[in-house]
Amino acid sequence: MEKSALQIARAAYQPKLPVALRGNLTVVEGEPTQSVADQEEVERLFPNTYGMPYIKFEPTEGEMTTAQINVGVILSGGQAPGGHNVISGLYDGIKKLNKKNKLYGFLLGPGGLVDHKYMELTDEIIDEYRNTGGFDIIGSGRTKLEKKEQFDKGLEILQALDIKALVIIGGDDSNTNACVLAEYYKAIGAGVQVIGCPKTIDGDLKNEAIEASFGFDTATKVYSEVIGNIMRDCNSAKKYWHFIKLMGRSASHVTLECALQTHPNVTLIGEEVEAKNQTLDDIVTYIAEVVTDRANLGMNYGVVLVPEGLIEFIPAIKKLISELNDMLAANQKDFDLVSDEHKIDYVLAHLSDENAAIFRSLPLSVSRQLALERDPHGNVQVSLIETEQLLAEMVEKKLSEWKKDGIFTGKFATQHHFFGYEGRCAAPSNWDADYCYSLGFNAAMLMGAGKTGYMSSIKNTFRPADEWVAGGIPITSMMNMEKRSGEMKPVIRKALVELSGKPYKFFVRHRTEWARNTSFVYPGPIQYFGPSEVCDRPTLTLTLEQE
Amino acid sequence: MEKSALQIARAAYQPKLPVALRGNLTVVEGEPTQSVADQEEVERLFPNTYGMPYIKFEPTEGEMTTAQINVGVILSGGQAPGGHNVISGLYDGIKKLNKKNKLYGFLLGPGGLVDHKYMELTDEIIDEYRNTGGFDIIGSGRTKLEKKEQFDKGLEILQALDIKALVIIGGDDSNTNACVLAEYYKAIGAGVQVIGCPKTIDGDLKNEAIEASFGFDTATKVYSEVIGNIMRDCNSAKKYWHFIKLMGRSASHVTLECALQTHPNVTLIGEEVEAKNQTLDDIVTYIAEVVTDRANLGMNYGVVLVPEGLIEFIPAIKKLISELNDMLAANQKDFDLVSDEHKIDYVLAHLSDENAAIFRSLPLSVSRQLALERDPHGNVQVSLIETEQLLAEMVEKKLSEWKKDGIFTGKFATQHHFFGYEGRCAAPSNWDADYCYSLGFNAAMLMGAGKTGYMSSIKNTFRPADEWVAGGIPITSMMNMEKRSGEMKPVIRKALVELSGKPYKFFVRHRTEWARNTSFVYPGPIQYFGPSEVCDRPTLTLTLEQE
Repeated sequence: MEKSALQIARAAYQPKLPVALRGNLTVVEGEPTQSVADQEEVERLFPNTYGMPYIKFEPTEGEMTTAQINVGVILSGGQAPGGHNVISGLYDGIKKLNKKNKLYGFLLGPGGLVDHKYMELTDEIIDEYRNTGGFDIIGSGRTKLEKKEQFDKGLEILQALDIKALVIIGGDDSNTNACVLAEYYKAIGAGVQVIGCPKTIDGDLKNEAIEASFGFDTATKVYSEVIGNIMRDCNSAKKYWHFIKLMGRSASHVTLECALQTHPNVTLIGEEVEAKNQTLDDIVTYIAEVVTDRANLGMNYGVVLVPEGLIEFIPAIKKLISELNDMLAANQKDFDLVSDEHKIDYVLAHLSDENAAIFRSLPLSVSRQLALERDPHGNVQVSLIETEQLLAEMVEKKLSEWKKDGIFTGKFATQHHFFGYEGRCAAPSNWDADYCYSLGFNAAMLMGAGKTGYMSSIKNTFRPADEWVAGGIPITSMMNMEKRSGEMKPVIRKALVELSGKPYKFFVRHRTEWARNTSFVYPGPIQYFGPSEVCDRPTLTLTLEQE
Repeated sequence: MEKSALQIARAAYQPKLPVALRGNLTVVEGEPTQSVADQEEVERLFPNTYGMPYIKFEPTEGEMTTAQINVGVILSGGQAPGGHNVISGLYDGIKKLNKKNKLYGFLLGPGGLVDHKYMELTDEIIDEYRNTGGFDIIGSGRTKLEKKEQFDKGLEILQALDIKALVIIGGDDSNTNACVLAEYYKAIGAGVQVIGCPKTIDGDLKNEAIEASFGFDTATKVYSEVIGNIMRDCNSAKKYWHFIKLMGRSASHVTLECALQTHPNVTLIGEEVEAKNQTLDDIVTYIAEVVTDRANLGMNYGVVLVPEGLIEFIPAIKKLISELNDMLAANQKDFDLVSDEHKIDYVLAHLSDENAAIFRSLPLSVSRQLALERDPHGNVQVSLIETEQLLAEMVEKKLSEWKKDGIFTGKFATQHHFFGYEGRCAAPSNWDADYCYSLGFNAAMLMGAGKTGYMSSIKNTFRPADEWVAGGIPITSMMNMEKRSGEMKPVIRKALVELSGKPYKFFVRHRTEWARNTSFVYPGPIQYFGPSEVCDRPTLTLTLEQE
């Protein structure tokens, strides 16, 4: 494939490593760890990988070599910038341990392990992908590694290829499964270590040892670039309210980071909506009030940021969707016989009064979507709801009522946008390039140290890479028990936006000023070659959290 | 307002000027010009500004100074990257002519001239905006300067401020009006020169003297960045067809340039659709064939680029819309009384059989939009049609028919995107920063040379700035007579994509290969500080046209 000029120039970039990973290293063990909650239950489920210590690598004298091993790697779930650098870091790391070590990539996600689809990754292949975006080196996929049969099937190919260690690059669920696999392989004495790497643009895999999931830095910079461009347009044309929805699943980290970078007039944070038990009307009223305030100041324009997961955080809507799913599951046969044009009536007749009232208050396009479009399990497809349009329409309706009452005297015209795919495969920023390369290199060192059930951990990432701290954290230490499909399961606790956290608090301190004034900031595109203060700045979330 | 790190670093960039504009200069006149068509009629309408020669500036010895003059500047129409650099170039240019010269900016577009809203632009203000995107320094607007009363009203404030020259930065229509104004002021001896500057991301203001309209370079680079990111995601996840609509009004220049930069599987060019008299079904069939071909090769994913103006270029749709507008105008009162749910039936009953059949073939969402949503003049709002969704739905329908017939055996899932506002206010690329600054500086020199009715022209822009050629072209030379709102008017001829041009031909030579293979190119974000081959490359359209 033809390469762009930037891709060619960027290939030469040598990612920075923490000092401990530059030469020979030694392992420093901390205290035994506990899971974040439900300790007894988690320990019972992970007898072989529970309670291990946090470990840290420190530089030491001498040459580093280990016996020859083969290593496998898997990309799991949605794309995030820097995945290729995790793999090139891993590759360089295992080659440093022993030049004869080999790396195999399983194709199109965890399914590749189960279906025995793989390729050997060589110098030539790795060099093609250094510092590039995407997961296309081996592809990714969403198969969940959960069952014993999958583990056993996987072990066949691992043994056939003489693979002694497997690195799984994924989000919270994939790392949970990595740990289940580590536990199983250890329990049966399979002789295969499993190490996880924290990936997701959503930023919701985060704790004391994992300061950020990779990709969050780059993706939020790409979104902030285009948000900034739209803001400058907004502030030049002075005639539109732009409603911008941002990817990020349930958590609002992406939206919060982009807000910190660009200062929109309105930013909705799902976690706050839930904590305050807000209704859809509360949210619409809040936006309409900001619009009215600005109109009174002569500004009939602005920018609203909406997190993808918002709708699920509105308690009333959450209840409605839950009843809708249960009701439709119970009446599926009946419902399938109802013609499309009568489905909304059917739904209204079968919901509780409270939820029927909520359903009736939604714009037709949304109620139609809720009634007609379902996923293969028969569930309402919340992620398809165009929240940015929904809010724009509902705010417009409210403002036209206020206009009749003389409360609103301005103009209100809207544009809407949704950004997600634009940022997931961008080439990694310097920060992500370094962080990912270090995560991968470090994963190799964890394998070299004989560890399993650990996640690669690089800390102190707010500081220059020289001061980064490399180590590993037992995955079980991040777990608690949660209900999944009706059953209690051990899972890594998802990190939502903390309302007591510094990034959120910084936002709250400034949002009134950002609402009334036009305080837009235009971050511009990611730069790779300029001054350090432009090219190497970490996210504001990380900066505020670590400061 | 808080500035981003990049904005601060970028402020220091000193845009490059053509050699002739660096010191004292002399005017070299060419032969008298003719309008591109309808010479007699255009000459009759522009007795004072018709037939003037193309002029070129050449460097000469000595110091440059002119008598003190005040200058006005107007931003007209949609935003384009680099507008602030045109103004800073103009400012530096008039200061070079005479340090006492003053620059006034009229606010929010041509309306600011008519309504006497303006501000003086000072060193301090100009320095805040160097190399930034947006038009927010003085704002833009869409008021058309067409009437004698507007010209007279404008002259009052020009005289009150002692402004002897006015620069209008705009697209084809705004420059047409600039010329009408130049002619009028010359005819009445008002003593005000008028100079135009070629602005539009659409790229449709282009001819021998105007190699590109400013903003096209930057906007297409931003769109290509996000298209490339989506492509990398597409090629990693391998499960979606992404339908991407791009701004650009009627002409498909933006879409063609982005296709040349990124190599999508399908690119639709409006001008080709019209030339080949294609139907909507022809287009849908073509896309469905590419999807089927790729599915047969195991690739159920790809990228389709759709120009904003496509729908207007489909001859059958064009006819339908035209009959729809006429029919509704004739029956407006009746139609307004019809309830929304019966409007589609009403439309069907009142259209010719041929157009009713076309109307019936459209997806419901589109026919509803055509029947229900109209602009203030009662016209169908073609630009609101979500062509990218329309095509995705129609291709899906066709493929499900083909599936029944066993022709298509793959999967087809889609995502859609529309990019426009993301690129219009991006900070200018080096090329646009230099070009815009040169256009503005050069406009000052045209004023210094006593010219009016000219457009600022910078040629040879495919070469390094050292070799750029500065001069001016009489606006009348770009004109022909066209029907506007029922009347024949002199207008600058719009430059559509030429099917005999090199960029289009290059695309046609490669599109089959791009369709069947995955030949995606990932251009990445605009770089300002890196190697020249990354930071200074002009558009591929310009490169192919000028090579």
